[in-house]
Amino acid sequence: MNTDINTSKYTQNFRIGSFDTDFSGKVKMTSICNYLQEIAGMHAEALNWGIDDLRKQNLSWVLSRLKIKVFNYPKCKDVLKIETWPTGIEGLFGNREFKIFNEKGELMMIASSCWLIINFKTKRPVRPHNIIGDSYFENEKLFKNSLQKIKALSCGELQESVKVHYSDIDINQHVNNVKYLKWIIDSCPIEFLHEKEIDELEINFLHEVKFAETLTIFMQSNANNELQFAIKKQDSNIENCRAILKWK
Amino acid sequence: MNTDINTSKYTQNFRIGSFDTDFSGKVKMTSICNYLQEIAGMHAEALNWGIDDLRKQNLSWVLSRLKIKVFNYPKCKDVLKIETWPTGIEGLFGNREFKIFNEKGELMMIASSCWLIINFKTKRPVRPHNIIGDSYFENEKLFKNSLQKIKALSCGELQESVKVHYSDIDINQHVNNVKYLKWIIDSCPIEFLHEKEIDELEINFLHEVKFAETLTIFMQSNANNELQFAIKKQDSNIENCRAILKWK
Repeated sequence: MNTDINTSKYTQNFRIGSFDTDFSGKVKMTSICNYLQEIAGMHAEALNWGIDDLRKQNLSWVLSRLKIKVFNYPKCKDVLKIETWPTGIEGLFGNREFKIFNEKGELMMIASSCWLIINFKTKRPVRPHNIIGDSYFENEKLFKNSLQKIKALSCGELQESVKVHYSDIDINQHVNNVKYLKWIIDSCPIEFLHEKEIDELEINFLHEVKFAETLTIFMQSNANNELQFAIKKQDSNIENCRAILKWK
Repeated sequence: MNTDINTSKYTQNFRIGSFDTDFSGKVKMTSICNYLQEIAGMHAEALNWGIDDLRKQNLSWVLSRLKIKVFNYPKCKDVLKIETWPTGIEGLFGNREFKIFNEKGELMMIASSCWLIINFKTKRPVRPHNIIGDSYFENEKLFKNSLQKIKALSCGELQESVKVHYSDIDINQHVNNVKYLKWIIDSCPIEFLHEKEIDELEINFLHEVKFAETLTIFMQSNANNELQFAIKKQDSNIENCRAILKWK
């Protein structure tokens, strides 16, 4: 663990374990998302906005939108240096950017994220202004445009049904964000998984899911190697998650 | 990362991320198993018996038996210090022990494991004697008896069927050991998951499983809070895994 805080930027190293890599030895995108959530939590804690600080007011951070662009895939045993900084408030979102470097300092991936502060008694978002203030913000934005809500599927086909298990639930008593991405990637056609790589992913988290619920995963193929997904509760129109994976 | 090698014993720290913990904030046993496999690989590499060394001879380490006794559950953000040492050869097995400490030096868990060296062309085990030699072995054994093969279920009931996905497959092109434990714990009755803790687990890995196969999980309740499991290929009598979980 190598930590360096200059308050507005936070840096942390993550070693890619064999359990973080796939059949080809490349890092899994789910592990990258685990690292991003972890370092966001560490930085928030260092700034006194951490989940332990927020819990005292019945509040919690919830990831709402995430976009990752991949330049290169790191591999097993690589030590990644991840850098993160908050870029301020946009509506109800607190925004945060990430750069992922390998040991040589080469930029492997960039990411951008939008977070809500939710009152977990009312399940409603609250205005983040009084909580995170307006200091410590950096200007550097990594994508040209702000993250938008992904549009609905026009003609998705059912890929799989999944039941929510013990291993999917996190300390917030609901399905952890990263599990949606796991189910989405697992439901991709084999020719994508075996012959292509994810070039860019964008995901929206819309409604929480609880233990023992059953979810259905819908997919449609767009142009240009783009697969689009929606996860819904079984026998309902409630959408829990939307995502777009661009492959190369 | 804090590494200390005195050749025969190897020590490594692992920080428990939020993604390594369950709904109660306790570490998942699957994450503990990930750490144990990781440190075993690191130590083997330091002793020049690592998977990269073995691959040159078409060989690979395969975990065959594992037993873990839990004294206390570490929590999110705890940094564990894991110590491991090989204890020598028994039949075709290379044996290895583990102690897991928290930051205060309190012993949280102990574990023992038996590994085979498999020729991945013939799929047969080879004698480990010429590969790992007889130096570097420590005497300290953590359980009274050697790990035995778990007996077959006498009256198991089908709990679940699971299809093998992309996220289950590791660099050896088969289901990673830890995924069997994930499926087993996920198939436990809710009253065990919510009201009890795993006190001891013992697992045997019998036959590998490939991408897209379907597995069936069978369970029987033994006396004294003991649940016993078998994982089989669907429509076959081939057993891939046996396990016993003792709960407290």
